[in-house]
Amino acid sequence: MISLNIIGTGNLARNLAHIFHETEGVVLNQVIGRSKAALSPFAKITSTSIDFNAIKESDVSIIAVKDDVIKSVGKKLISYKGLIAHTSGGMHIDVLSSNKNIGVFYPLQTFTTGKPIDFKNIPICIEANGPDGLSLLKALGNTLSTKVENISSHKRKILHLSAVFVNNFTNHLYTIGEEICEEHGLDFDLLKPLILETAEKVVNLSPKEAQTGPARREDQKTLHEHLQLLKENQQREIYKLLSNAIKASYEKKL
Amino acid sequence: MISLNIIGTGNLARNLAHIFHETEGVVLNQVIGRSKAALSPFAKITSTSIDFNAIKESDVSIIAVKDDVIKSVGKKLISYKGLIAHTSGGMHIDVLSSNKNIGVFYPLQTFTTGKPIDFKNIPICIEANGPDGLSLLKALGNTLSTKVENISSHKRKILHLSAVFVNNFTNHLYTIGEEICEEHGLDFDLLKPLILETAEKVVNLSPKEAQTGPARREDQKTLHEHLQLLKENQQREIYKLLSNAIKASYEKKL
Repeated sequence: MISLNIIGTGNLARNLAHIFHETEGVVLNQVIGRSKAALSPFAKITSTSIDFNAIKESDVSIIAVKDDVIKSVGKKLISYKGLIAHTSGGMHIDVLSSNKNIGVFYPLQTFTTGKPIDFKNIPICIEANGPDGLSLLKALGNTLSTKVENISSHKRKILHLSAVFVNNFTNHLYTIGEEICEEHGLDFDLLKPLILETAEKVVNLSPKEAQTGPARREDQKTLHEHLQLLKENQQREIYKLLSNAIKASYEKKL
Repeated sequence: MISLNIIGTGNLARNLAHIFHETEGVVLNQVIGRSKAALSPFAKITSTSIDFNAIKESDVSIIAVKDDVIKSVGKKLISYKGLIAHTSGGMHIDVLSSNKNIGVFYPLQTFTTGKPIDFKNIPICIEANGPDGLSLLKALGNTLSTKVENISSHKRKILHLSAVFVNNFTNHLYTIGEEICEEHGLDFDLLKPLILETAEKVVNLSPKEAQTGPARREDQKTLHEHLQLLKENQQREIYKLLSNAIKASYEKKL
């Protein structure tokens, strides 16, 4: 049995508390947060506190807070004896160097309040400053997912950078699609089956092979017409830059 | 019973032939293409021909060919009496103006050879130059999908433009994610659950509300570090432009 605290009350903290509460082999001892209001959803399933000095001794404390406060949370837990692991893609393990037993427990996924995630297939990137810590995080990860990977801070940062492209930037392209539809009185729902299929397609096919569209086939007439239709300057710039990138990436192949 | 010809042998022609062959209420009379080799996969399910003059009389002939040959295909079918409909997102219905009964039958989806698509939820955008043609295409669309929409040539072009953002450009961002992973010896599979969830998230949540990431939260430190990590100039340009677009779109909201 692995005993666990969670520090933080945001989307990831909620998703982790929810899933660990239901997971065999793990006991969620406590959730610590900055305000009683933010802790109230957790109070139904475990003990909560706003006092970092009142932290319970557990095998692991998972810090699920914003990047820029991880360090200060670590400093508040200097007397805590268990393993402390943060959950950030972009932060080095050493951000917790004030503490003795430290690690990282980074689920490579996007979390939304009110939308529980199936953790089974989510990669969990782990790292620790010692073999015991690594074994513990491996065991903890295995209670949730079949894909627990030992990844260094540098490689995790690279994964996080890639995630910005496939998640944050992709979502902005969806936003532009929605804006164009709204501007012309078209229902954005019409594009949703296409959005889903575009994602599902690359599960089995490399995106390089899956590329289609006017830029891929060098269809200058359509590229020109599309630029004429776009009224917002930033949308035009994005259209041009991404079309040129697709063209260049195809030319390289020849 | 609606009788049907398909003209063309590419991804869309294959998917349409496959699904109409299995659909009640439709009989696939014939597939016409430029070469016997390309027609051979169709020969198992229906009659095929490379001779446009040998076209069978059917209620509808669907033209599923590249945009720039739709016009010339139409001209080859001047003596054909049924309805002729093209399947292009970007082409005006009038590209078929040499013919008498014309229309458009545009399934808003991306098609891959060897990956059959469930048509039930795919929007099919229809248009015709007369009420009889429109009724016929509506009836034909309803045999496949619950989402048959009467959309003008101009609005279809706008949808196609939006589709370029959410499909073609998104796929290129996946390609960049794959390139970054490969460059650092990381498995692109690690990003696939994130890619799927990013798409699934906007089924119920507006992408504007779903936006996360360093640009959204104005995390200058991470934005700077990411640009340092990117070695390819074009990847850096895309990173900068999309991050600035996200920042601007957030500022507008304030």
